[in-house]
Amino acid sequence: MSKDLTPAVKGTRDFYPEEMAFRKWLFGIMRDVSESFGYQEFDGPEIEYLDLYAGKTSEEILSEQAFMTQERDGTKIMLRPEITPTFARMVAQKSRGLLKPVRWYAIGRCWRYEKPQRGRAREFFQWELNILGPESAEADAEILAILATFFQKLGLTPEEVVVRVNDRSYFEQVITENGISADKYMPLLRIVDRKEKISTEEFNADLRAEGLSEEQVVALNRYFDEKDYSQSSWLSRVFTALESYPGVSGYIVYDPTIARGLDYYTRTVFEAWDKTGNLRRALFGGGRFDNLTAAIGGERVPGVGYAVGDMGITEVLEQFGKKPDLSAPVVTLLVSVLSQETLSRSIEVVSYLRSAGVRCELWSDAVSDLGKQLKYANNKKIPYLAIIGEDEISSNTVVIKDMLSGEQSSMELEAVAGFIS
Amino acid sequence: MSKDLTPAVKGTRDFYPEEMAFRKWLFGIMRDVSESFGYQEFDGPEIEYLDLYAGKTSEEILSEQAFMTQERDGTKIMLRPEITPTFARMVAQKSRGLLKPVRWYAIGRCWRYEKPQRGRAREFFQWELNILGPESAEADAEILAILATFFQKLGLTPEEVVVRVNDRSYFEQVITENGISADKYMPLLRIVDRKEKISTEEFNADLRAEGLSEEQVVALNRYFDEKDYSQSSWLSRVFTALESYPGVSGYIVYDPTIARGLDYYTRTVFEAWDKTGNLRRALFGGGRFDNLTAAIGGERVPGVGYAVGDMGITEVLEQFGKKPDLSAPVVTLLVSVLSQETLSRSIEVVSYLRSAGVRCELWSDAVSDLGKQLKYANNKKIPYLAIIGEDEISSNTVVIKDMLSGEQSSMELEAVAGFIS
Repeated sequence: MSKDLTPAVKGTRDFYPEEMAFRKWLFGIMRDVSESFGYQEFDGPEIEYLDLYAGKTSEEILSEQAFMTQERDGTKIMLRPEITPTFARMVAQKSRGLLKPVRWYAIGRCWRYEKPQRGRAREFFQWELNILGPESAEADAEILAILATFFQKLGLTPEEVVVRVNDRSYFEQVITENGISADKYMPLLRIVDRKEKISTEEFNADLRAEGLSEEQVVALNRYFDEKDYSQSSWLSRVFTALESYPGVSGYIVYDPTIARGLDYYTRTVFEAWDKTGNLRRALFGGGRFDNLTAAIGGERVPGVGYAVGDMGITEVLEQFGKKPDLSAPVVTLLVSVLSQETLSRSIEVVSYLRSAGVRCELWSDAVSDLGKQLKYANNKKIPYLAIIGEDEISSNTVVIKDMLSGEQSSMELEAVAGFIS
Repeated sequence: MSKDLTPAVKGTRDFYPEEMAFRKWLFGIMRDVSESFGYQEFDGPEIEYLDLYAGKTSEEILSEQAFMTQERDGTKIMLRPEITPTFARMVAQKSRGLLKPVRWYAIGRCWRYEKPQRGRAREFFQWELNILGPESAEADAEILAILATFFQKLGLTPEEVVVRVNDRSYFEQVITENGISADKYMPLLRIVDRKEKISTEEFNADLRAEGLSEEQVVALNRYFDEKDYSQSSWLSRVFTALESYPGVSGYIVYDPTIARGLDYYTRTVFEAWDKTGNLRRALFGGGRFDNLTAAIGGERVPGVGYAVGDMGITEVLEQFGKKPDLSAPVVTLLVSVLSQETLSRSIEVVSYLRSAGVRCELWSDAVSDLGKQLKYANNKKIPYLAIIGEDEISSNTVVIKDMLSGEQSSMELEAVAGFIS
């Protein structure tokens, strides 16, 4: 009957209770932050027809990183690589019926069929948060303020992490002002996206290859070096609003090199980075996507938002020693069972204590000696053990043993919850 | 640019915030009940190699209801149809290192590629809960007590739902006592599984077709009619323990016709049903699986548990009018923004109130008139609106409008949280 154990699929993760406790803690902070800003949780399916992604999600993901399955008739179904297209579909389906602004978030599983490597798995989670409706710089500032609040709640400081913000339409304005044709916008944006990874010489050569004059190359270099957003009325409004959020603006800087690959971003774009640069990639990103719902066939509804992956954040928390200690015992008390005859009273005791809000375990059979139960409580670091024998039943009491000090105290059942809390 | 909207995949569900609020409520009860009994949450991947299911999950599911994808080398990967095999794999992987009893639960998404129909979707959730280690009737009683507590917390009464319990090994004992060969056990169990759906004549004919004598047919009929578990020492211990759990035993009855299809159950098996019978199928089921971890290649660790699907429970709650009203407003207060000049103070007010624990929304731009903001608060049923104009800024106050009564009160910022709570 026995055979080799089938392993987990490569690039997936098993969440044993210890890992799950961390995941719950992290997701709990995401939920609290979202809801304190008035965002409501939604969720969609984890599978969508391939069509939904075509033309929005990057070609690289669709052609090389897709987990695919299909309908019996051959229609292609994809395990979602991101949540944004599902969000856009759900909004587009009932767009006119939705009260704007729509403030929604989701925390869900996504897949990428890629070679598993450090900090990347084929199965991961994303916290997706968007505000839909307003085409205002104040909405962008709110989104950035939520991210900074998230970092605050995680205990990550502005010395450790940073959100780098740009305005794509400001870049468009700069190239136009320098006499560069508007149809160079996307090709130039792709060069900007690589700027941090290449030398100034390579960058300039790439610009020249796009047909820019020496004067235009100089002008663009000045724009990148000066890091001055005062000519962007949009970014000026974003940063003005951010200054009024207490403790937030320290996390956020203007960076004209931020471009974001995804074509659906229209204006503000941003990326979070760890300041040591050890991760060598953005922690996560987001931006304004004013045409996304229209692009998938719905009404045009402007929006802004982001998607935070759980793995990058976890690495950063580890790197800065900010992962919390979540090793607290699951239950406060183990109710022992001494015999078949005393079982009934042990069950009454554990049921009473549960109804009084005490988390407790009942020993799992009526035939173990007390030594085994003590050992279990010790190994599991359960702080208290309840002992109920014939004597306790006749005197209507319970003996509570403090597992750390070894002290035993006899008391009435009604006194136990108070004693151990 | 616009095109037809790509629809959701058939048999999947979109959870808009209203549906999500119900899902969160339901999962919250599952979590609270699990944790009050000392169970810890775990989770595994939602994809597993096909091999993990072969020989455990039913052939019908594997051959006809599997959502499949694959590795580049052709290794078959399945979207999990249930969580139990993943649970068994995770336990088997570190079996000797785990402190027994293992009390774990999970709430996760599962898939079946079936024709969508009422109460069944191709994407659904299961609450999986197991205790691993003890081979004791007391552990089985605990599992049943958890289910009954779950029903209590949902507001479902013993008049509305019932858990029907059987002991497969008692049936084995009965057939052996009546001189029926042990190798008839599985074929007869399959006939028992159909008993409720066929007439007594058909049932008896099926028994005779398995080679049973008239005397044996009569004896088995008596066993089913009498519904007397006193000769099963195992069931006697289960029901004795259940009586000590307050309010629990009313939900649980002995029923010798419960068989459960899955081969991995070894002893106690059970199914939950709605008493009206309107659902025409079990709400969910479970049982004791003492050989599962050994069957997938690990050490033998006995266990008992269940998997509750979210769709059956939801239907039952609807049927009995027990779905809760979750339409409470998401936020207590909308902080309005009157102009670009007052924006900064509005942000300070909303930030202060959030830090004081008040859930509030900030109006999403600095160019809307107050009427639009009032209308939004009204439509979204937000109970209070904060108004901060030039006068409020110079007098360092906030005007709070009660949206129901229309009354406006001016106060200091520090007084707002108390006023609206």
